[in-house]
Amino acid sequence: MTAFADTPEPPYYAVIFASERTAEDREGYDRASATMMELAPKQPGFLGIESARNEESGFGITVSYWQSEEAIAAWKAHAKHVIVQRLGRERWYRSFRLRVALVERQRSWTS
Amino acid sequence: MTAFADTPEPPYYAVIFASERTAEDREGYDRASATMMELAPKQPGFLGIESARNEESGFGITVSYWQSEEAIAAWKAHAKHVIVQRLGRERWYRSFRLRVALVERQRSWTS
Repeated sequence: MTAFADTPEPPYYAVIFASERTAEDREGYDRASATMMELAPKQPGFLGIESARNEESGFGITVSYWQSEEAIAAWKAHAKHVIVQRLGRERWYRSFRLRVALVERQRSWTS
Repeated sequence: MTAFADTPEPPYYAVIFASERTAEDREGYDRASATMMELAPKQPGFLGIESARNEESGFGITVSYWQSEEAIAAWKAHAKHVIVQRLGRERWYRSFRLRVALVERQRSWTS
């Protein structure tokens, strides 16, 4: 299994979520994160997700890819995701930035 | 110092670079990476950079932010960056995906 998202030809949307973790409740975070990684791919318009975190600094980036703004809005409003967003602000994140971007072109390379 | 990029109001561009590292030449990679992180901010149109890698899996995401397509093209063609791109394919990366996207909106949150 690869950590890369196999996205279709652009255009499509990217949600770039950069975050700094607290040191708190690592187990709860890992569980919620796994649940979201399982749930997101089942949503209409989901195209893929890529995620990396530096465990030492707690800084991470997750990029999810979507067919449309509507798909992004529906995922944001998903009941289980809403609960996790609240817990994120209360417990798991010190700070985050979220950017929504329209992917115009892509290329991939493998050795 | 924060790992977040303090980007201006959109629109602006994001270059989303997802990569899988080889286990080779970690020292050379770290040195080149540090040089690029120092050089990129000196380029015209540079707006910021965010980066995270899971050291265990070798999977990482670097997102750099730019004022325009021209700024992205100029950085891609920068002599020192060209050398590092070649070494990346020869030594440091097993695989990568690069996406260019137009950031339409952003929000930030701090506890």
